[in-house]
Amino acid sequence: VTLSPQPASLLERELLEQGAVLARRAEPAAVAAAAAAAAIDRPDVAYLLIAARGSSDNAARFAQYALGSEARLSVALAAPSLFSDPESGPDLRGAAVLGISQSGQSPDIVNVLVAAGRQGRPTIALTNDPGSPLAAAAEAIVPLEAGLERSVAATKTYVASLHTIEQIAQCLRPDEERAGWLDRLPALVDRTLQQMLGRRSDFDALDDASVLTAVGRGLDFSTAFETALKIRELSGMVAEAFSPADLLHGPIAALCRGGALWMVDTRFEPGQSTAKLLQLAREREIQTVLVSRYTEPPATGAITIDLPADSPRWVAAILAILPGQVAALQVASRRGVDLDRPHGLSKITLTR
Amino acid sequence: VTLSPQPASLLERELLEQGAVLARRAEPAAVAAAAAAAAIDRPDVAYLLIAARGSSDNAARFAQYALGSEARLSVALAAPSLFSDPESGPDLRGAAVLGISQSGQSPDIVNVLVAAGRQGRPTIALTNDPGSPLAAAAEAIVPLEAGLERSVAATKTYVASLHTIEQIAQCLRPDEERAGWLDRLPALVDRTLQQMLGRRSDFDALDDASVLTAVGRGLDFSTAFETALKIRELSGMVAEAFSPADLLHGPIAALCRGGALWMVDTRFEPGQSTAKLLQLAREREIQTVLVSRYTEPPATGAITIDLPADSPRWVAAILAILPGQVAALQVASRRGVDLDRPHGLSKITLTR
Repeated sequence: VTLSPQPASLLERELLEQGAVLARRAEPAAVAAAAAAAAIDRPDVAYLLIAARGSSDNAARFAQYALGSEARLSVALAAPSLFSDPESGPDLRGAAVLGISQSGQSPDIVNVLVAAGRQGRPTIALTNDPGSPLAAAAEAIVPLEAGLERSVAATKTYVASLHTIEQIAQCLRPDEERAGWLDRLPALVDRTLQQMLGRRSDFDALDDASVLTAVGRGLDFSTAFETALKIRELSGMVAEAFSPADLLHGPIAALCRGGALWMVDTRFEPGQSTAKLLQLAREREIQTVLVSRYTEPPATGAITIDLPADSPRWVAAILAILPGQVAALQVASRRGVDLDRPHGLSKITLTR
Repeated sequence: VTLSPQPASLLERELLEQGAVLARRAEPAAVAAAAAAAAIDRPDVAYLLIAARGSSDNAARFAQYALGSEARLSVALAAPSLFSDPESGPDLRGAAVLGISQSGQSPDIVNVLVAAGRQGRPTIALTNDPGSPLAAAAEAIVPLEAGLERSVAATKTYVASLHTIEQIAQCLRPDEERAGWLDRLPALVDRTLQQMLGRRSDFDALDDASVLTAVGRGLDFSTAFETALKIRELSGMVAEAFSPADLLHGPIAALCRGGALWMVDTRFEPGQSTAKLLQLAREREIQTVLVSRYTEPPATGAITIDLPADSPRWVAAILAILPGQVAALQVASRRGVDLDRPHGLSKITLTR
């Protein structure tokens, strides 16, 4: 089931390319990822500092959990504005610094790498443009090799970023099982996308939501953020993301009838906070989408999307963004949005 | 101008205590802050890792900018769920670890300190309860000394946390000017609170907003988050926070008529992104509150709140949360919310 014989928008075409992008980049990017891992795996490096914005910042959140749990690497997210003057930013001793930017153009992300370089720290760029200023500021360059991404909403570059992070994990902590799943990932991405496109009308239930709250924990935290960002930038719907514990801690007040809940959970059963949220959503009659692989799905009345149960968690966590991308596409299409240039947004933010 | 001769809610009473809390804690807390600074200022410490949730997490964001710019200390925010098994969390070499929790009860924050302690790393607790599990897990304890906080919405413990962070900055990089402003801070907090309470009806203009978007950069990023959290947890309004660059990067799509914009900027003139947002808000007829100290305020039609122009930025940045607290109180009061137990929330989140 493809969307249509000739997808009407660049967004749809780029979204459909994702499996092929991962297959094509697997070998060349693995070599570059090894160079990045070498810049991290040094006796003078205690932690990895990542600078990124937007979807790339969500990839950075994924890296914090993936490298933290799979390679026991401490990963910090940078506050780019601290580095607007590269001479007076924080002391980066002990850090290796990774900048993630599809375009490689964001001046504030480039500044972080420039500051790190001046302090003699190892620097890595993850970008779709090896000729970009970000790449020029880095010692090690990992190309996303996603092909030109012309749609404003990042899809294939986001998934390629997650792919790279797992390739780096594989270099830091080699593991045969992970290697096998890295090989299988492109086909799984294709299969999941086809399934989601076949079910795209399920997401029509989100059409009237006043606000969408996306929730995830650990590896699924980044997916919640990226789902909310995709839905928001494409459809214009107010959408936001929380960890389940943080949402229960206070902001739960605004989860009410008329809203929608998007729950991502790649564990095999819901934790306490997640179970409580699903129950609350049911009581308050909130339209819920549950992207999970629970062994015993709770009775929720939710739209349920099952992720593969036989894979490691990181595989399910990468696949978990695909329903979010398709839902964003669907809701925006029905709202008559220009998918390639929604709401007059431009691809690169040059302002600070 | 006080709110009423006998404030009706604990929240109002605690909010009014904030200046007195800072005056009372100044000396004893400075001694404890020196011990915390000593745990950070060691040759084997390359960065400070902070674990926190909710309002305390917003204090951690403040610390990232304040200690980064004032003491050139690299500050990272922890992902607590990585430490749910203290034996398998990330390798914390090079880190000093600070847990911030008003109650000191959150198990996931305690776990981060336990993990750090097992790895032999220096640990610090910032808490209002020196008898709490968080304090028990730390080598150095900085008491908030805010007095019992019984309202669900944190006010005086939040401001006391920011006060502590500046006290730690003062130990790491002593500065006479900062010392003088630390002395003046309690009176400035009192004065600003009285001004805000005198203008509280200005915030009635936010009553009908469908969603409130709070925006700030650098030191003001944490204030944007804390303002959104206060308004959300008290009034039940959907409220969210962004840096100006991130908002322009995509989520701007949802900033539309019917929404409200809350802009915090303690610089003397708006940056590019901020100016663009203010202009957009005007064009889209969005009700705007501008908390700033611009030398030449732009023509915005906004409700403007002026912060002291003669103080260092960090002083204005601490005062900048007070209008947000008062606005949250006002909007919630008019909505008939039980201010001390809004929407059935409880003070401590024990679930994970």
